[in-house]
Amino acid sequence: MSFIAMNRFKVRHGFEDAFETMWRDRESRLNDMPGFVEFRLLKGPDGDGFRLYTSHVVWASRTDFEGWTKSQQFRDSHKGAGNSTTRDALMGPPQFEGYETVLHQT
Amino acid sequence: MSFIAMNRFKVRHGFEDAFETMWRDRESRLNDMPGFVEFRLLKGPDGDGFRLYTSHVVWASRTDFEGWTKSQQFRDSHKGAGNSTTRDALMGPPQFEGYETVLHQT
Repeated sequence: MSFIAMNRFKVRHGFEDAFETMWRDRESRLNDMPGFVEFRLLKGPDGDGFRLYTSHVVWASRTDFEGWTKSQQFRDSHKGAGNSTTRDALMGPPQFEGYETVLHQT
Repeated sequence: MSFIAMNRFKVRHGFEDAFETMWRDRESRLNDMPGFVEFRLLKGPDGDGFRLYTSHVVWASRTDFEGWTKSQQFRDSHKGAGNSTTRDALMGPPQFEGYETVLHQT
């Protein structure tokens, strides 16, 4: 069953546009990866001083996700993760959650 | 852009199978609803005394999601929400998060 990898980002109010632009302008190589199904950037509810965003990637299996985390594509895509824009925009580090699909109805 | 409605459930250790069975055996009428795209029950990370599960429904738009929340199908599907099995299984009420899709890559 497919696997969903999410990262939850607390984006300080005022940094929403910069955060979205960073994702929009990034060069994604996810389509090169075996088992990649789809990527979404999701804009969620407001919190205390921040807006919750979640990155949301569907993989065909957990094994495919793990393959990506060991790839050169993964290392390249995380080069900017600690830069100053990201540090200013975020309240704390992103929170990773990995999910197995138990039921699927379409 | 599509809308994702998630509910986060903290399921006490030992209640995982009962919780999954309850979802598996329910009668879903989501397929009758305009704008319904897909439903998933997701099994997430372990926490302190619980396993995190998330129900995950993709709708064509926020308007379609809101239409469902006002429907008879919605009322029927939430009739069992406060029963004793659910109360025993969960640490606190489910936490709703609604998400707009900002970017989508397939």
